[in-house]
This record gives sequence, C-alpha cells and structure tokens, in this order.
Amino acid sequence: MNQVRLEINAQRMMQRLHALAAVGQTADGSCCRVALTDEDRAGRDLVVQWMTDLGLQVSVDPIGNIFGYRPGQREDLAPVMTGSHIDTVRTGGIYDGNYGVLAGLEIIECLNEASQQTQRGLVVAIFTNEEGVRFTPDMLGSLVYADGMALLQALALTDKQGVTLGAALEKIGYAGTAPLGVHRPHAFVELHIEQGPILDAEQRQIGVVEHLQGISWQEITIGGQANHAGTTPMALRHDAGYAAAAVMTFVRDLAREMGGHQVATVGQVKLTPNVANVIAAQAVLTVDLRNTNESLLNVARDRLAGFLAHLAQAEGVSIEISDKVRFAPVSFDVGLTDLVEQQAESLGYTNRRLNSGAGHDAQMLSRICPSAMIFVPSVAGISHNPAEHTEACDLAAGCQVLCQTLLVLSN
Amino acid sequence: MNQVRLEINAQRMMQRLHALAAVGQTADGSCCRVALTDEDRAGRDLVVQWMTDLGLQVSVDPIGNIFGYRPGQREDLAPVMTGSHIDTVRTGGIYDGNYGVLAGLEIIECLNEASQQTQRGLVVAIFTNEEGVRFTPDMLGSLVYADGMALLQALALTDKQGVTLGAALEKIGYAGTAPLGVHRPHAFVELHIEQGPILDAEQRQIGVVEHLQGISWQEITIGGQANHAGTTPMALRHDAGYAAAAVMTFVRDLAREMGGHQVATVGQVKLTPNVANVIAAQAVLTVDLRNTNESLLNVARDRLAGFLAHLAQAEGVSIEISDKVRFAPVSFDVGLTDLVEQQAESLGYTNRRLNSGAGHDAQMLSRICPSAMIFVPSVAGISHNPAEHTEACDLAAGCQVLCQTLLVLSN
Repeated sequence: MNQVRLEINAQRMMQRLHALAAVGQTADGSCCRVALTDEDRAGRDLVVQWMTDLGLQVSVDPIGNIFGYRPGQREDLAPVMTGSHIDTVRTGGIYDGNYGVLAGLEIIECLNEASQQTQRGLVVAIFTNEEGVRFTPDMLGSLVYADGMALLQALALTDKQGVTLGAALEKIGYAGTAPLGVHRPHAFVELHIEQGPILDAEQRQIGVVEHLQGISWQEITIGGQANHAGTTPMALRHDAGYAAAAVMTFVRDLAREMGGHQVATVGQVKLTPNVANVIAAQAVLTVDLRNTNESLLNVARDRLAGFLAHLAQAEGVSIEISDKVRFAPVSFDVGLTDLVEQQAESLGYTNRRLNSGAGHDAQMLSRICPSAMIFVPSVAGISHNPAEHTEACDLAAGCQVLCQTLLVLSN
Repeated sequence: MNQVRLEINAQRMMQRLHALAAVGQTADGSCCRVALTDEDRAGRDLVVQWMTDLGLQVSVDPIGNIFGYRPGQREDLAPVMTGSHIDTVRTGGIYDGNYGVLAGLEIIECLNEASQQTQRGLVVAIFTNEEGVRFTPDMLGSLVYADGMALLQALALTDKQGVTLGAALEKIGYAGTAPLGVHRPHAFVELHIEQGPILDAEQRQIGVVEHLQGISWQEITIGGQANHAGTTPMALRHDAGYAAAAVMTFVRDLAREMGGHQVATVGQVKLTPNVANVIAAQAVLTVDLRNTNESLLNVARDRLAGFLAHLAQAEGVSIEISDKVRFAPVSFDVGLTDLVEQQAESLGYTNRRLNSGAGHDAQMLSRICPSAMIFVPSVAGISHNPAEHTEACDLAAGCQVLCQTLLVLSN
C-alpha cells in the first residue's frame, strides 16, 4: 500500500477555500470569523456540511473541537490526524488555518473517488479558538484536547463582556458530547501557510518545520515623573518615555547580537499622559522574545532583566516586569519531519527545513503524539491581513505533500 | 520718589489667591478654568470686581484682555504694566498666572493705603487664553495685543466643537470695546511661578529671567511594515516602533551632548496597530526641542533631520516631519532685568538669573516694550497639577520685588 499515489484536485480545494472565505467577509476583503461568534458558527456549519457530504463521521467534543473521521481497515489501530483551525483574527486572511482543514477534506475526497481505504483511519480536525482573539489563551481547543488545561477551567474563561467560553459554545451550538481526547491519534500532521517571509524570499515551495519558537511575552511598566518639557533640565529628568525607548533599542540590539533564531519585538507602547510637552510619568510596553532554543531564550530574558535593573537605577525610574505568556520551544518528531521532507523531495518540490515563529495547534498535539508541520510560502510574509496570499500552485503542492505523508502514515 | 518703599500684605494676597482658586475647583483640588468657559467668566467677574473695588478703571479689549488702570501724575507718559493670565489647564494649580495678576492687585492696594500716586500710571493686565487648552495657539490674548496676530484671524479660531473664539467671547460677555493695544506700556514686568525645579533645588527665592527658550515642536510620522513578531527575521524588519525608539534615544543623547540650555523631549508616541506580537506599521511621535539660543536650536533641528534621513535609509522606513510649533527664543530687556536683580538684592532675597522653559505673556509683550519676568520657586518643579505649590514666604518675596520694580519704573 506504500506505493499509493493520489493526485489532489487543487481547483476543488480552492473552491472550498473561497466559499469558506465568503463567510464573515468584511468590506476590506478581510475574513472575520472570531472564535465562538455567529460568523464562526456559520463557518463551522459549512465545513461540517462538507464533512458530512464526504461521508465523514462528525463528532464535537466539549470544548467545541470538531472531528471528521474516515474509518480505516484496522479499527484497532489509532487513526492518523490532520487539521488546523477555521477561526480568524478580526482582519484575517483566507488561508490561515482554513487551508490546513480544507486540504484535509480534499484528501478525503480523493480517497473517496479512488475508493481507497487506508489501514489506519483518518481524522480531519478543527480546533477551537486557535487565534485567541476573544478568549485567551490562543490554541485553546488543542491545548484542552492535549490535556494542557482542564476542561472546566477552559469553559470558565470569560471574554471582555464577561461571557464565559462555555456559554458562548452553547450559544453557537458547538458544546459537543464526544469524550475529550476522542480519536487520540497515532500521528498528527498540520499543513499551514508560513506567515513569515522565508520561503517566499527563497522561492521554495515547501517548508519542513523542525522547531516552533518558544515565546516570552512580558509587560514592562516604567514609573517616571511627569514634568514640563521646557523647564526641566535633562539631568533632573525621570523620563518614563526615554526609558521605554531604551528598552526598545536594547532588545533589538540584543536580538541582533545573539543572532541565530533570536527575535525581539516591542509592538505595544503606551505613555502617560502622552502629551507633547510633558515628560512621561509612565510607560507600559510589551517585550516579545522568541527563540527555538529554550536556554538561549532564557539568556535573552536574563539579559533583559539585567538591563532593566541597570536602567531603573540610571534613570531613577521604577520598573515592574509581568510575565504574560511563556511557552517553551517545541521540537517536532524527527522521524515524522524526515518523512515530510522525503515526500516533498520525491514529489520534486523545492523545500527547506525551517522553524515556526508563530504558535500552532501542532505544538499542543506534540504533547500526546508524534507531530509535524508542513509550511507553504506566504507572499512577502504577510498574514493576519487581507493581503495574506499564497499562490495556488504552492497551495496545491502543500496539499500533495500532506496527502502522500498521510498515506504513508496510515498504510 | 525712588526711595519709596511699600510693605506688601502677603496675607491679603493669599486670601485673593484662595478665593480665585475656589472658582472652578474640582474634586481632586485642581483649578479648572479653561479660557472662555463659564468658569473662566466667573473667575474674570471676581477679579474685575476686585479691580473695581480698588478704584481701578477697568477696560476690556476685543480679544477679551482685561486692564485695570490706576492713573499716575503724568498722563502724558505711558503707564507701567504688570499682569499675567487667570485661565488654567484642566488640572491646573492655583498659582500659575493667577499669582502675577493678584500680586499686581496687592501692590495697587498698598499704594491706595499709602495714598501714593506714581508718576506713570499703573496697569494690571489679564491676558486671554494663555494656556491654549480650548483654542490654539496659547498666549493668544497677549499675541493679539502685541500685534502678533490679526484680531479677525484670532476671533475666527475654532475649538473642537467648531465654536469660534469670537462667539465664545460674546457668550461669556468679554468681547470688549476698548481699542486693541490700549494702555501701550512703557514697560511690562510679569511675576510668575517658575514651573521648573531650579530655584527650589537651589533654595533661592527669586529668579531673574534672562531668556525665554525658543521652541521647536515637530511631529514625526514613521511608516514601516506590519509583520508577525515571531516569523519575521530581525534583518527583514521595517519596524516603525524601533525607529521611533531610535529617535527618542537620539534626541535625549543630542540634548545631553549639546549641553547648555538645550532640552529635548518625546512626550507623545502612538504605534499602529500597537499590538504586542505585531511589528509596528506606523509610529507617530512628537519631538519638542528647546534652547535659549536660536542658532543652537537650529543646530539641534538640523542634527535631528540628518539623523532621520539616515534612519529612514538604514531601517527601510518612510519618515515625514511636520513643524507644529516654532517660536524663536526671547531675550528680555537687559536694563529691566538688571533692575529686577537690583531690587531682589536690595531686599535681601537670595536670587539667581535663569531662563524660562515655558512660554509666557511677557514674551509677546517684549515685541512692543521693554519687558522682564520675575520667578518664584515651584516646589519640586511641579506645575499644571493640583500639587503645584509655592511657599507663602516666596510668594510674598516675589510680590515685594515686583512692587519695588514697578515703583522704580513708574516714578
């Protein structure tokens, strides 16, 4: 059965992508299907209908994850799972998440057309709230599925209006009854757009993901002294705005100096009172540090902490550090990663190994089974943006690699 | 007549300060009498009543400036003017502006009690909209009085609700009929709190103001490229937030390096989208540069412009510079400054020469007559804040120096 070769139908996959994109489409061409909203429900309903039409056995677990199951010849063996998410950010593109789910359905349809039954069953999964826009944390559905958070704790999470996640799930009709952890997989492979510039810049079709960056996201609160911009000599200032800028330039220099896979970003800054002629009394900024190597990430955190202590003393400002997000790096299964690479090679696609700077459901699944990810290029690295784009030929290539990988794993 | 010495009544001046502070007082102890509001009207009404009670001839010009005139023996000689403003910022203290006006009234009352008539008449002036909170620019009443802006242009200015300054003046009943430039003075002396930390830090009672800083206030708009904080390698970023931080640290280093009276402040920064895990697409920040020396201020501006050009190229970002405020420095009249210093010395007050980092009505008056300013300490340099404070003994000292200076000038 290892010699099976299916030709996926790229046009059919694109039709489903565009049909799903039309649900929650906004005036600027964005996709807006924030998890557990009416638009998310409409998107779920559409994909569940497609699953049913393809003969998949659909089940929904209590955190709203959806599973479309195609039985194999050997019901005693754990199934092979693929999938991703279909929720979006408020200004989402049409590929992020959706592509991985709909590529899975395309492969199911190919198998149906070829009347092929794999030895292991196949599951196409849709995980709840990957984006984490309305409910924090992100990747919540896969986290709960993989035993990373207790169900009751997850259901009790609230949005800014105080609505619980449990109530929101009930409201959209996706508080399911399948047992948590249903279809516990033999292996999980997630196909996704890169959301970064590397494959596009190097004109490679397939990315074989080795590691997923660890994330340290800290909020830094700097307390200075508000004062008059004209009357206060430079030497007498305790300028929270300047201190914030010093942090921003420090982390950028730090990442450049450390090199490798270290990145550092300050994307959010708020000065108080934020008036042109008043020295800032307070600055609140976020520092997002990422590295594929946990000990190097800790080096970066330590060096930042050291700099902040020095800065507080030098500027006469108070500095508080609050940890907001901390994920350790994930290394995907070596055997599975090799398998993906072999399939890309044997199909003749240009490819390279790379790391993911974004979080994905596969990092949660890797807690419970061998997992891997396949990336396709994002034009100019743009994502979370209506300009998010991947060429159709690259989408087809990624689906073909996923197809062959799933066939090997399930036969 | 040069030997006249009057003893001012500090307690009486403090009573007027506190009575005026009660008008527009807010729950946190701030004074809120924004120019041309009902609170401003109530404050004006109170001070005009005091002027009338003191026998002053009150006139109001078409921009709402109020003049209380005490005739001298020689009506053929131009009068000597003192005064300031009584409008406040939204969270104003009780001394800023008010002190200069009410010290003037205290001196009038002393002269009345002593039945002394000066040779030149004396004028206590209240200038409209010094703070510039509701209508821009600030120091508007004195600017128009000193021919720096046409009356019709000033009356046509609008607030954020589209109300014209002319209509607001009519509404509070202070669109007067006295000719613009009435009581054109022989000399103008303004008494004011320092609003900076120097006198307080050095424990001196009187500041003799030599120069008023020139101001350059620019808005810098940096256009970068929004991108994912995890997936975008450092070398491929066009980070508007980093570029903003580089500007912030550059201007601080520049001011420190230039030394002297150069100060530089970035008090306002806005990143877009301002999200922790998104590289900023845009940053808008203000750069406030001040120096008492116009050519040095231009050096600072030029060096900033050079840095911005370099930064735009190095980071691959667009940078636009927009001039928002540009005032040349003002040097006060040398003879008048010497006179103030002599009075402070002969009264035995500790004193020093210094510069003003804030704008004041005296800078406008200096366009049409010899002008000077007297400062008293601001505790910790705090102003525009309910915590604004000056010790009563320092307020008395400043009033006494003003009194002796006015007596010399008017006799």
